[in-house]
Amino acid sequence: MQRIKYPAYLDKIQTAEQAALHIKNRHILGVSGFTKAGDSKTVLPQVAKRALVEDIKVTVLSGASLGYDTDADLAKNGALYKRLPFQADPTLRKSINGHEVLYVDQHLGQTADMLQKIDTYKIDIAIIEAVSITEEGHIVPTTSVGNSPVFAENADKIIIEINTTFPESLAGIHDVKVLKKQPHREIIPVTESDTRIGDPFIKIDPSKVLAIVYTEVPDSPAVIVDPDEKTSAISKHILEFLEKEVDAGRLTESLLPLQAGIGKTANAILSGFKDSKFKNLTMYSEVLQDSTFELFDSGKLTFASASSITITEACSDKVFSNFEQYKDKLLLRPQNISNAAEVISRLGVIGINTAIEVDIYGNVNSTHIGGTKMMNGIGGSGDFARNGYLSIFACPSMSKEGRISHVVPMVSHTDHTEHDVDVLVTEQGLADLRGLAPVERAQRIIENCVHPEYKAQMLAYFEEANKAGGQTPHLLEKAFNWHTQLKTAGTMKVNALVDELV
Amino acid sequence: MQRIKYPAYLDKIQTAEQAALHIKNRHILGVSGFTKAGDSKTVLPQVAKRALVEDIKVTVLSGASLGYDTDADLAKNGALYKRLPFQADPTLRKSINGHEVLYVDQHLGQTADMLQKIDTYKIDIAIIEAVSITEEGHIVPTTSVGNSPVFAENADKIIIEINTTFPESLAGIHDVKVLKKQPHREIIPVTESDTRIGDPFIKIDPSKVLAIVYTEVPDSPAVIVDPDEKTSAISKHILEFLEKEVDAGRLTESLLPLQAGIGKTANAILSGFKDSKFKNLTMYSEVLQDSTFELFDSGKLTFASASSITITEACSDKVFSNFEQYKDKLLLRPQNISNAAEVISRLGVIGINTAIEVDIYGNVNSTHIGGTKMMNGIGGSGDFARNGYLSIFACPSMSKEGRISHVVPMVSHTDHTEHDVDVLVTEQGLADLRGLAPVERAQRIIENCVHPEYKAQMLAYFEEANKAGGQTPHLLEKAFNWHTQLKTAGTMKVNALVDELV
Ligand SMILES: CC(C)(COP(=O)(O)OP(=O)(O)OC[C@H]1O[C@@H](n2cnc3c(N)ncnc32)[C@H](O)[C@@H]1OP(=O)(O)O)[C@@H](O)C(=O)NCCC(=O)NCCS
Ligand SMILES: CC(C)(COP(=O)(O)OP(=O)(O)OC[C@H]1O[C@@H](n2cnc3c(N)ncnc32)[C@H](O)[C@@H]1OP(=O)(O)O)[C@@H](O)C(=O)NCCC(=O)NCCS
Repeated sequence: MQRIKYPAYLDKIQTAEQAALHIKNRHILGVSGFTKAGDSKTVLPQVAKRALVEDIKVTVLSGASLGYDTDADLAKNGALYKRLPFQADPTLRKSINGHEVLYVDQHLGQTADMLQKIDTYKIDIAIIEAVSITEEGHIVPTTSVGNSPVFAENADKIIIEINTTFPESLAGIHDVKVLKKQPHREIIPVTESDTRIGDPFIKIDPSKVLAIVYTEVPDSPAVIVDPDEKTSAISKHILEFLEKEVDAGRLTESLLPLQAGIGKTANAILSGFKDSKFKNLTMYSEVLQDSTFELFDSGKLTFASASSITITEACSDKVFSNFEQYKDKLLLRPQNISNAAEVISRLGVIGINTAIEVDIYGNVNSTHIGGTKMMNGIGGSGDFARNGYLSIFACPSMSKEGRISHVVPMVSHTDHTEHDVDVLVTEQGLADLRGLAPVERAQRIIENCVHPEYKAQMLAYFEEANKAGGQTPHLLEKAFNWHTQLKTAGTMKVNALVDELV
Repeated sequence: MQRIKYPAYLDKIQTAEQAALHIKNRHILGVSGFTKAGDSKTVLPQVAKRALVEDIKVTVLSGASLGYDTDADLAKNGALYKRLPFQADPTLRKSINGHEVLYVDQHLGQTADMLQKIDTYKIDIAIIEAVSITEEGHIVPTTSVGNSPVFAENADKIIIEINTTFPESLAGIHDVKVLKKQPHREIIPVTESDTRIGDPFIKIDPSKVLAIVYTEVPDSPAVIVDPDEKTSAISKHILEFLEKEVDAGRLTESLLPLQAGIGKTANAILSGFKDSKFKNLTMYSEVLQDSTFELFDSGKLTFASASSITITEACSDKVFSNFEQYKDKLLLRPQNISNAAEVISRLGVIGINTAIEVDIYGNVNSTHIGGTKMMNGIGGSGDFARNGYLSIFACPSMSKEGRISHVVPMVSHTDHTEHDVDVLVTEQGLADLRGLAPVERAQRIIENCVHPEYKAQMLAYFEEANKAGGQTPHLLEKAFNWHTQLKTAGTMKVNALVDELV
């Protein structure tokens, strides 16, 4: 029991079943967890279980996505009324798109502020995973900080899950500060990736603690697909581009702090830095994946700040068995600080994120399939794309045996406008769009990024639109033809129907 | 000649014609001027004049819009190759939409940073209006600061226009600091609207000065249309909403620093605060209009920070003949500080901007008519909407005798995504969208903001889309029907054609 250094909590130890009984129908829960890391592994799943036999439906706010099947089971069993600010689970996604669960998709850096501004989501119970409890009863979180500090502050009551699968030596990598509401908001004095501004624990009011539960379930391991031809090509284009920026004297060999989104593309891009000529790199990101630790091992990376660590089982074994080797190079922050406009703009973060589709003017859709169906959510992409030094978006030019072009005439949903997209890259090539007018952007994107099989039909659209004039030439009556044809004919290719008929 | 306190400049005095001869074909010019205030009134117009008789085409970067017919004449005479980051002139707009001039529309807070990042727009000559020159040869600007500090730093050469129509007592209201490029970017230590962080002049290298010109032309007066029924109704809805926020204890009676866009709607809204119960208001905005001075006079406003002052002739007479009365309540900053994400998020600015059209999910188009033709530009609206405490967008529900509904199924161009739009308001009513999922947003917008004459057809669209499901229900094949029908049938009203035929 030495993980609890605050004796008054000792009589609050309960089983997950007991602790979960504090949660009532219609409760609003604020739970730890960010990209599967540091989430509630035994208490929150009890709500899904109870929903099988009783009337219980809750609203769940988290940092970002939760691990295992927690979101899936909550959705499947009808235990979810509303979910925010992110999700990435196929079952939950289906419930959201089927209007069984309401989903509020948010810039991940802005949820904490929202809780200070409106009363809609007053938290009834916060459930927070801890590696230990300090002598004052405060929480040392595990592999993510996320929104836990603001949930703990905002909540009526708190349930703590102590996860003994993480080494106690995790204590010390967190840097926690709860920002005051305006007009009392303070300067966030982070001037380097490694600047510490807060406490290595989440301060809580011990009288709010309802129960403490012991958990022995590790984080759900991240699954990383190895780089393939396309993601390697994308990585190569980005590295070449950044090398040119260094050669031209616009950046130094240590670039500026890097942010990379989640998934195989981002991971492949970051891995590519191992064999680059860059040195003394830093990260100011929201999630750290395996590639971060590869870069530490290769000596390329000196420091990484984020809000969570989401790694594969193999990487996790390596990292947590030699944690002292990495500890002084890591910092986990609340997501409203890892993603703060103030800090991202000051440090000049280079943001690398993935798109579902992009259009010829550089607008990006990172959330909605066919303009309607939610995929994962906008995540932190907007926080970095808007405020960083350089905003790079990557995606394959084409997929599904050529039936989908990821570069389209007009995105069916806009998450990032052309103003916030500096560079677009597909395996075909890279388009540096900085300082260009829309028609110049279109020419460069069509030339460099569109798959050859779609180039002719893209040029046909652009040229016809161009004739009609306008700052951003479009034919509204045809702008979504590719999308509607994908639905009706199974492909975005204009000649495909004809080909089939022949 | 006592406006020039640096004797070495005295032999650089030239006429506007002479000074303008330094400008060559293909030059890139960085000119002062923001919303018609503090622009070059005699030198830059010479370029338009010369273009009538010689081959001269230049790229013009400014703060924001220029006054008089400068932009119009440059465009009309073919003297403009590229224009950025803003414009609001009907003639120039036509040239842009007709592909005679390339226009790069930018978040106004981000142009200065762009100049530090890429070399595309290395400034050949900066033309900056001054009220006087300090003893060290530095520039005291007039009614705007805009991008002049970064232009002066980036430019090879500088031409100064001393405008004697402004009282020398303007000196002192400016607060100028040039931010360093990352990784050396410093904290911007503005913690209140009135925090001073720089110099009351623009530091320049005197050896860059090519010429000094005397000008006796005042700023082009702003033309303000009096509040009408619609803008008064919009103002009333906003004031009621803010009063409720105060009553609920979420804001205090001095609210948070206000930002208001340009134009009659914004001016009417701000004027409305005169008769409100709010007290000790402050502004942290980019432009100050007549309403700011009305609020000073009525004792409601204690301080206003911005990047320019754009007022009517009557207001100008009042302000500049009693300047001492206002001087200690005003501060003009470079636009990358008035519009800095860092400061706007820290202070928690309440941003009130105008839309061309909005859609049922809360996405905003503030720039493109019919998705293609540029109106004015995005201006600073995005800087405030993304980063402030509260982002309010206003527009009439309907115009042109009912032929246009400003609430549409899907905006034809997205400048501000639903994530950055907290409140929508038309004369019909206000929709507080904070914390809502897309379908909830749609219900509230349709209920509160759509004109009764368009409600049935909007509900028909939404209900049909809703049946098809998805997080953000849309029918891509019908999403722009209203826009295309406006083009073909002259109205967005679905029954109008039928009615006419009957
Ligand atoms: C955008 C995002 C979903 C891309 O992820 P990814 O793993 O690279 O993308 P995938 O290749 O799995 O594509 C997603 C799916 O959408 C499908 N898709 C993409 N575009 C499509 C289109 N126009 N029409 C239909 N389906 C499409 C893909 O085919 C794929 O389907 P599948 O799972 O059946 O193969 C992901 O990066 C994301 O969630 N981003 C938002 C959050 C974010 O950026 N956070 C930043 C910091 S963490
Ligand atoms: C959006 C903006 C143009 C609205 O200005 P406004 O004066 O309130 O708008 P107007 O009523 O003049 O509308 C503009 C024109 O577009 C037309 N229009 C609007 N929506 C239209 C539509 N869907 N289809 C066709 N025309 C449309 C209007 O009818 C009007 O035309 P008119 O001049 O022939 O009457 C203005 O606020 C702006 O420039 N905003 C961007 C910059 C900004 O927000 N800066 C913020 C800080 S300064």
